[in-house]
Amino acid sequence: MLWSGWGDPAKARELPEQVRRLLHDLLGVREPTAPAAALESVRLPPVALEPGQVRAFADLVGARHVLTSDEARVRHTRGKSTPDLLRMRAGDGTDAPDAVVLPGTHDEVLEVLRLCAAERVAAVPFGGGTSVVGGLAASRAGFAAVVCLDLSRLDRLLDVDTESMIATFEPGVRAPEAERLLAAHGLTLGHFPQSFEYATLGGFAAARSSGQASAGYGRFDDMVVGLTVATPAGSLDLGRAPRSAAGPDLRQLVLGSEGAFGVITRLRLRVRRLPAERLYEGWRFPDFQGGAAALRALAQDGPLPTVLRLSDETETMIGLARPDAIGGGDSGCLVIAGYEGSQVSERRSAAAAVLTGLGGEPLGTEPGEAWAHGRYSAPYLRDSLLAAGATVETLETAGFWAGLPRLYDAVRLAMLGSLGSPLVMCHISHVYETGASLYFTVVTAQEADPVAQWDRAKAAASEAIVRGGGTISHHHGVGRDHRDAYAAEIGPLGAAILRAVKREVDPAGILNPGVLIP
Amino acid sequence: MLWSGWGDPAKARELPEQVRRLLHDLLGVREPTAPAAALESVRLPPVALEPGQVRAFADLVGARHVLTSDEARVRHTRGKSTPDLLRMRAGDGTDAPDAVVLPGTHDEVLEVLRLCAAERVAAVPFGGGTSVVGGLAASRAGFAAVVCLDLSRLDRLLDVDTESMIATFEPGVRAPEAERLLAAHGLTLGHFPQSFEYATLGGFAAARSSGQASAGYGRFDDMVVGLTVATPAGSLDLGRAPRSAAGPDLRQLVLGSEGAFGVITRLRLRVRRLPAERLYEGWRFPDFQGGAAALRALAQDGPLPTVLRLSDETETMIGLARPDAIGGGDSGCLVIAGYEGSQVSERRSAAAAVLTGLGGEPLGTEPGEAWAHGRYSAPYLRDSLLAAGATVETLETAGFWAGLPRLYDAVRLAMLGSLGSPLVMCHISHVYETGASLYFTVVTAQEADPVAQWDRAKAAASEAIVRGGGTISHHHGVGRDHRDAYAAEIGPLGAAILRAVKREVDPAGILNPGVLIP
Repeated sequence: MLWSGWGDPAKARELPEQVRRLLHDLLGVREPTAPAAALESVRLPPVALEPGQVRAFADLVGARHVLTSDEARVRHTRGKSTPDLLRMRAGDGTDAPDAVVLPGTHDEVLEVLRLCAAERVAAVPFGGGTSVVGGLAASRAGFAAVVCLDLSRLDRLLDVDTESMIATFEPGVRAPEAERLLAAHGLTLGHFPQSFEYATLGGFAAARSSGQASAGYGRFDDMVVGLTVATPAGSLDLGRAPRSAAGPDLRQLVLGSEGAFGVITRLRLRVRRLPAERLYEGWRFPDFQGGAAALRALAQDGPLPTVLRLSDETETMIGLARPDAIGGGDSGCLVIAGYEGSQVSERRSAAAAVLTGLGGEPLGTEPGEAWAHGRYSAPYLRDSLLAAGATVETLETAGFWAGLPRLYDAVRLAMLGSLGSPLVMCHISHVYETGASLYFTVVTAQEADPVAQWDRAKAAASEAIVRGGGTISHHHGVGRDHRDAYAAEIGPLGAAILRAVKREVDPAGILNPGVLIP
Repeated sequence: MLWSGWGDPAKARELPEQVRRLLHDLLGVREPTAPAAALESVRLPPVALEPGQVRAFADLVGARHVLTSDEARVRHTRGKSTPDLLRMRAGDGTDAPDAVVLPGTHDEVLEVLRLCAAERVAAVPFGGGTSVVGGLAASRAGFAAVVCLDLSRLDRLLDVDTESMIATFEPGVRAPEAERLLAAHGLTLGHFPQSFEYATLGGFAAARSSGQASAGYGRFDDMVVGLTVATPAGSLDLGRAPRSAAGPDLRQLVLGSEGAFGVITRLRLRVRRLPAERLYEGWRFPDFQGGAAALRALAQDGPLPTVLRLSDETETMIGLARPDAIGGGDSGCLVIAGYEGSQVSERRSAAAAVLTGLGGEPLGTEPGEAWAHGRYSAPYLRDSLLAAGATVETLETAGFWAGLPRLYDAVRLAMLGSLGSPLVMCHISHVYETGASLYFTVVTAQEADPVAQWDRAKAAASEAIVRGGGTISHHHGVGRDHRDAYAAEIGPLGAAILRAVKREVDPAGILNPGVLIP
């Protein structure tokens, strides 16, 4: 993973000429930005751990599993939001951990957390490092030091129960590896978020990830039937049945807790059979509202495709749903519908009848295949745009169907008002019977201080989401970036409940401080 | 509602001669029990509230909404478990509240709770009064008095959003009234538990109810998209989107909290269109294991019927799935499959192919219609059995598919070992991809102290469930009766988390004390 950008540097993409022209003509982007700093030149704070503390961690997990090198620290600094990348490109390593500790078992995680609590050292669980909401930048205030708890050694598939259709994993398994391990049993999770290539199962659970095929396979939190968690106050082992009436569902308190309540050390996940067939196709709707009505019809009355997405007019025009053909977009609003599993042709024609009846025009499989081919490309494209002098970032929300048009307008207006004349694109990529997500991508010419520029736009968008009645995140999480809006969303008593839970499981407050808890 | 039994006394049922013979020949039941006490003769403790306290409640909700009559107190004593009914029949009113308070708004609930906290008066939220787990018998220890918070005045349908398919209700609406109000809009919740005729929406949410059509409509907690809650520490207003990645799902902390964390004063519920068609049919499988495998196939690979149930050999023989034809049961194991909505015949034949392929024999619609006709009859039948000298009670659990056979054997053995030679019947009535529920009905000859007799059997069954890896309740809840087993299920840290939440929302501990929280 590129430390100052996304993914495998060998897959970096030159911007197509069409996109360069768009940036120049539409957004007034004139100058490429300064190249990213070299890793060696990143400015790091001195290691705040004392040698005795480093030795104490080494005693617990082994000396070669405690890293204090500059490279290890840089590679575990922050996540992958645009402000994160802008800071890293500028050589700003202020949020680096003092050490990276790699526990190998649940018990080692427990012991490391207890040591952290005793030494007042903050602990930041680290899976794939793909947070886009500041989930990996702990607050140092009041702490002697910060260690990153890299979970990559907890990388095993522990059990496959094909009768219950449950696979038991350790949290550090990356999604492609999980799929490879499950495919050997003819199984799949069906969880394919944009972070798929790097993110880990533990991170998916801790941040309530939702993948591109959520209509068919559910969100990641739908897949979790059991969790084992290590906290400074002991362990939790939750989930004895698919569902239960035995009290509040405590699994749902761990899901979305982003490392602030504990470290997930084991996940029992519902799996499905590998689909026999996959087919993705495109549809065009005259406008976003009409397309949304069609998605709503499929979500409420069926048949629901496995993948279901709708780009608004701007995103369709730019062609962002098809990163390989970007700049060569179309008119109207593009819908991508995907069918995986069995009875693909029956389900496809039943859905086609609904889509046609609501004004959709079939575009065949070409746009669907193009979407599927480019489904993990956008973050690579972002690096190229950042280098070319543009600022590009995404943000997202969700709401109930009746409130979506107002929410859409409010967020767009907030960003347009804050950024001059940016390109603001939106899609719906996750649908439910009662509502859907809205995912915005913004591109604008980079100002002298691009982080401040984005912070301003983000604050305006977040305020619009809170006022517009949406949730501050559908699948990115809270982290540090959404903490204030989250506080408004759950209210003072909701925040007090979270703090009460936090005090109980983490009395010293060492778990990912500054993240999530208002 | 009959105060010492179930439902409308006019619907009381004489035991069929076949059942009397079964009781006599199979279980050795010889003597009918003493008739139930008259309401006037129930022994009640004196009202522990001082006149000034009664006036203070009256100042908040109006004098005619504070009841201290014997009848009101008796009618709000305990729930509807068999031990509850045995105690009521014996004239034991020791668990009666000192007063029944009927708030009419969210703000009145808030004020009543604050008064209770100030006066150290325990408050027990009361919806339909149908708890079967001791959820309405608060602990008096440390409290000046106990008031029952009857929510029947909070009985409105506040809003119907047909675009988002969300209906907003107050909590005191009984299920049949909710269905009647929704039917006027062509809508339904699809929630039909055995307590349907009396239970309220608030109770369904507070206790995580699951209805007989859960395969098609989901559990009640699946229907809840938003909740407003009154607590002594203030209000919670949760749910801005169908799903969210903004932190832990706090709705899931209120669902299942059984009044210990607050009083639900408003529910936003996902609704569905009224089904155009309904069809229920029967299938016979040679044995329980084969039938369970067929249910599992439908749950994992589809098509999933709206209703799906399987009775074990004993329940099938007794005919309990068809209360109108009880005693005239069949061999093998009866499956009831129900289809509601559209494409009923297509779904039915697709499921039929699966069931036939796995060894099922179709029995046509007659057993299905008989089940549907008698679906709310069992509690009436219980009253007749109690009067005839039998003890009859139900208990339930859920687990993952691979563990179900062991769980089934363990619970059966525990009850057989504890009760001599009872009749132990079981069905699966709720299926998931990863597991299912097990619902046991036990009938035995009544001993001199039938409450002690059942407590012994229940303790053995609960221990078997905990050891067998199941959850202590799939849809009855925790109440007082399951509190110890629940503690074992969530572990000491889980219990500590619940206590921490409780301290935050209810510092004086006045909310339904003794229930849920270990």
